[in-house]
Amino acid sequence: MAKDIRIVEVGPRDGLQNEAAHLSLEDRRQLVSLLASAGLRYIEVGAFVSPKWVPQMQNSGTLISGLFELKKEKVISSGVQFSALVPNPTGMKDALQTSLTEIAVFGACSESFSKKNINCSIEESFERFAEVIRLAKQNRIKVRGYLSTAFGCPYEGAVSPKVAVNLVQRLLKMGVYEVSVGDTIGVATPKQVRLLLRKLKDKVSLRKIAMHFHDTRGTALANVLASLDLGIRVFDSSVGGLGGCPYAKGASGNLATEDLVYMLHGMGCRTGVDLAKLVAMRPWIESRIGRQLPSRVGQAGVPSHRYDQ
Amino acid sequence: MAKDIRIVEVGPRDGLQNEAAHLSLEDRRQLVSLLASAGLRYIEVGAFVSPKWVPQMQNSGTLISGLFELKKEKVISSGVQFSALVPNPTGMKDALQTSLTEIAVFGACSESFSKKNINCSIEESFERFAEVIRLAKQNRIKVRGYLSTAFGCPYEGAVSPKVAVNLVQRLLKMGVYEVSVGDTIGVATPKQVRLLLRKLKDKVSLRKIAMHFHDTRGTALANVLASLDLGIRVFDSSVGGLGGCPYAKGASGNLATEDLVYMLHGMGCRTGVDLAKLVAMRPWIESRIGRQLPSRVGQAGVPSHRYDQ
Repeated sequence: MAKDIRIVEVGPRDGLQNEAAHLSLEDRRQLVSLLASAGLRYIEVGAFVSPKWVPQMQNSGTLISGLFELKKEKVISSGVQFSALVPNPTGMKDALQTSLTEIAVFGACSESFSKKNINCSIEESFERFAEVIRLAKQNRIKVRGYLSTAFGCPYEGAVSPKVAVNLVQRLLKMGVYEVSVGDTIGVATPKQVRLLLRKLKDKVSLRKIAMHFHDTRGTALANVLASLDLGIRVFDSSVGGLGGCPYAKGASGNLATEDLVYMLHGMGCRTGVDLAKLVAMRPWIESRIGRQLPSRVGQAGVPSHRYDQ
Repeated sequence: MAKDIRIVEVGPRDGLQNEAAHLSLEDRRQLVSLLASAGLRYIEVGAFVSPKWVPQMQNSGTLISGLFELKKEKVISSGVQFSALVPNPTGMKDALQTSLTEIAVFGACSESFSKKNINCSIEESFERFAEVIRLAKQNRIKVRGYLSTAFGCPYEGAVSPKVAVNLVQRLLKMGVYEVSVGDTIGVATPKQVRLLLRKLKDKVSLRKIAMHFHDTRGTALANVLASLDLGIRVFDSSVGGLGGCPYAKGASGNLATEDLVYMLHGMGCRTGVDLAKLVAMRPWIESRIGRQLPSRVGQAGVPSHRYDQ
């Protein structure tokens, strides 16, 4: 009866990218290494973007080479899958210089967000994806798709489920193996999640859908529950809740991996993650980013007794 | 189709009781007044306990007299129901000096917690309740029951649902009109909530059950969702998440009223609460308690668009 859940750890990319502190290459490598040793098996480690726009992600190629070295030396288990964000064909050419076997593309459900976040219209972004995916396929690289602002856009407000369903279908047709559907600004409640997932279920297999929730308004785990009940088995999260919310200073952004793992384990799900190890990373990360991490479990700690009867 | 949800605001009692800062009587009165003006209709405002043990709650009688004055002056709406915690017959005699029409008794599901928290065994606490309830009935005062540590005890670990079901039944038989079932240390996940509520449903009407969740490990709203789905319509919460967790410094305790209201409204439920007014109270409360409140919605703010499609 136990459900196997795949957690995609996005802290080293989505998380660090939204932190004011810029970690050194050595610290980024150490972060990934610690995450792998805590049992995370899917880690998005960097992005092939311009260092001018996203200095936090600079030298991702060098980072990834170092990580593959750690795999060779068996410091990082061979079962760990790395991925990196690739926004355009230029980034893809850089990604091809590494040993990566998986990359991700990132789009949005709202025109305003697409323009402000990735500097092009939704149509233009899909043209870029087509070329990135073509290059990836040529090189036998798997591609994951992100669809952000699926429930709401900070500029336009609510997003119709129809828009998200249509873009998910397009991404899958283009060849991504999974679409991570994101509540980028943390506005969804379980009602919206159920609405979207029921509409999605009519069109695509939910096995190809991951959910990416933000805990900005405390609803992330409730949204995970709604998704679990409807059959979703893949969730994105960020260690410690790394990342913050760029639209509200000091507020939470990404769902914290510890909080996700705590609830999943309490519900009898299997994740492969060692929660105590994850929580133990907290002081190290906080010393590097210079602020307290918002994870609830991180702050409260793993209970000394078991409550998952 | 919209569900009407009753929120029992416990910030002025359960919240303040667990804060290091001790608010003045004037500030406590102002807090209740602000909560009432934000649309909260059930507010637990104080406790008739020894000021030696709980200095934060001292002079609750004077506070309550002042609040009834504010009702007379129509500063506080006549529809607002006040309540106060009464631990024993001595406290009940003090409560009877006020105009209160409702009080609450507080018990636990674990012997160790009962002894450490209210200084008597579970059996002894029920003997006290019997006398308190007898005095209340004589004076036509409604009694609400709290059952804490229903999912877990910090000293003994997991609590069997059988224990909680049995104690809920006993409280209802003794004449409380509703039992608030508490995850006092914030360890439950939706699995445990569903398990307990399904067992409870076999024995009592869930219309007599309220749920009291703590967000210590981020699961409070997921637990609210699980409860809502099973028919629960009354939830306790604390403005701003006032209260903290006495077992983990700096960690969250009570579910924040803002977070609860945000999710409920997003799901189309009616609470009567004005979320913007609630969030606007935040700076005032923080200035009084001298720390940042943990509410996620409080930190992020009410979104400028509507996302509750």
